[in-house]
Amino acid sequence: MIIDCDIHPYPSPERPVERYIPPEFREAVRLGMDVAPGSGHANPFGVNRRDASCIDPKQTAVDLLDKYDIAYGVLVPGGMNVSLTRSIDVGSGLARMWNDWTIEAWLNADPRYLGSICINANDPANAAKEIRRVGSHPQMVQTVVCGEAEHLYGHRYYHPIFEACEEMGLPFAIHPGREGAYDSPTPIGRPSNYIEWHCALPLTFQAHLISLVLEGAFEKFPKLKVVLIEGGVAWLAHTIWRMDKNFKALRSTVPWLKRLPSEYVFDHVRLSTQPLEEPEDSDHLLAVFDAIRADRTLCFATDFPHWDFDDPTRALPRGTPEPLRKRIMFENAAELYGLPVPSAVADPETTTRV
Amino acid sequence: MIIDCDIHPYPSPERPVERYIPPEFREAVRLGMDVAPGSGHANPFGVNRRDASCIDPKQTAVDLLDKYDIAYGVLVPGGMNVSLTRSIDVGSGLARMWNDWTIEAWLNADPRYLGSICINANDPANAAKEIRRVGSHPQMVQTVVCGEAEHLYGHRYYHPIFEACEEMGLPFAIHPGREGAYDSPTPIGRPSNYIEWHCALPLTFQAHLISLVLEGAFEKFPKLKVVLIEGGVAWLAHTIWRMDKNFKALRSTVPWLKRLPSEYVFDHVRLSTQPLEEPEDSDHLLAVFDAIRADRTLCFATDFPHWDFDDPTRALPRGTPEPLRKRIMFENAAELYGLPVPSAVADPETTTRV
Repeated sequence: MIIDCDIHPYPSPERPVERYIPPEFREAVRLGMDVAPGSGHANPFGVNRRDASCIDPKQTAVDLLDKYDIAYGVLVPGGMNVSLTRSIDVGSGLARMWNDWTIEAWLNADPRYLGSICINANDPANAAKEIRRVGSHPQMVQTVVCGEAEHLYGHRYYHPIFEACEEMGLPFAIHPGREGAYDSPTPIGRPSNYIEWHCALPLTFQAHLISLVLEGAFEKFPKLKVVLIEGGVAWLAHTIWRMDKNFKALRSTVPWLKRLPSEYVFDHVRLSTQPLEEPEDSDHLLAVFDAIRADRTLCFATDFPHWDFDDPTRALPRGTPEPLRKRIMFENAAELYGLPVPSAVADPETTTRV
Repeated sequence: MIIDCDIHPYPSPERPVERYIPPEFREAVRLGMDVAPGSGHANPFGVNRRDASCIDPKQTAVDLLDKYDIAYGVLVPGGMNVSLTRSIDVGSGLARMWNDWTIEAWLNADPRYLGSICINANDPANAAKEIRRVGSHPQMVQTVVCGEAEHLYGHRYYHPIFEACEEMGLPFAIHPGREGAYDSPTPIGRPSNYIEWHCALPLTFQAHLISLVLEGAFEKFPKLKVVLIEGGVAWLAHTIWRMDKNFKALRSTVPWLKRLPSEYVFDHVRLSTQPLEEPEDSDHLLAVFDAIRADRTLCFATDFPHWDFDDPTRALPRGTPEPLRKRIMFENAAELYGLPVPSAVADPETTTRV
């Protein structure tokens, strides 16, 4: 049994997203006021698999959910990037558009689809309103933002968003998007090609996580969960080791932290697997899994229909013990999002939606 | 037997560095034209151990080299930051000042000290001249630059420097310095405290390494060696795994690469150990050591006299096999820098200076 934590639905002529632009922003969008900076990096072969499509919920259910026995699929739409819209109000309007589209075009089409609430993170008060507006929809399971951002996500600027997430019981998810649109996508400068940009994406995730943990987000919002989607996973080992080591020497500089940084991570942070690192010797990855407590922290994802899709039947390293496989493929995400075991195979003793 | 790959010597009233300002830059320095931006992050307790000093070569030899039986100690002076000097010419003049000071004040004082050539990386032609000017000194073993930079170090802007390093047989070393002085020290924004900044330093190293490998520096300069000092080591595992995985799908976008990215790393890149990650379970770090081929890539360092000094008798994880310990503590650096086993314990079969 599988939960896929990263599926990308696209609008199509049959299911246009523009239909859901809030009326007061129609003219602004018609005038091109929905512009946002791009990263300047694109896969020259296109971002989607040539044999796969994700514009029709029924077809995607057949091609992905049915084919791989996926019980739930978490949708991450392009609206995760609306925070970069130059016009702050239009950006917030676009967030509403994406969420209404997600509900009508996708969530209503199949109960296995779960939604991610798009917000304009650069309008935190409005973002919090949007989370409260659509967050009670039974298939909306989290809020999602892109990796590129005005501030590191541990910055207090974002607190109204975390407050709303906590109140609605929804995790705050970060997915790659537009890294390099504001400043360079590395701490130094701009890579000159796509593969370099792509290899550097985990830097953004490391930076956001360090910020969230060390600026005390999980002390201020003790029920907040953070999901790091498509950012890689193996970097978590060195990141928690370095935070814990430095904390021992410098804890008086962060008096708001009451526990080791790694403890906040294990309790509050989950990572989706795709694109999973693939060392030559899979035991190396299994050792990292052990170090990062993959039995609690990792949630499987395919990234369908993108070029670097991970096949559920082959994604995990050779030698993954069966109990760990179950945790990663289903149970961790079921606990994170409060999802019941599907009724056909339901066991009354297992997780139920809270 | 030990080689310490990161010792920080400081000027003092007895050994002032200003004495070595090239005459044509004295007036400029007097007028304050040696200004450079700072990172805005400082350890509130100071960067140096309160019980240690590194201003007197004889005393440091007693306190560090003699005490721990260190056969060679590689000096990394503050001049590694001169690339950030606003006046490019003054920056290049300061590089000469630091190198002449290193030779007279430290290398002449004890043959166990080895020097790092400071350069103004933002004046690549002049930097190459400086490498050729002092690079033949028998105790000068590498060129060093700071992590903060105008460009990622794989950028062709720096090729004249790599050409000079290759010609002189000197590795190109990168050491943390002033991260955040130009743009923010993360891909996103500025951390609000020192511990967060310090935990993010490995991001800069990951970015530079990805750039060097994927932009083809090691194909263009097949004899170039790169040393990553004080940037942590455990992040190397996920970085090579991700580069190798992406290379398999995207190799046609980087046709200048003829081998897996990890192969360039194992042949061309060395990392100094301090500050070594310290997981709760040392087996996790030993598994990472295996993945990153620590028996070839890691070189021990103390970072004396800085606050996070690693003690040679305790730095390596519990359970490090003796042959691996020897590789990390002495042999890898001896091969990298071409250093003979000291004569008192010399074995004619072992490495000799090339």
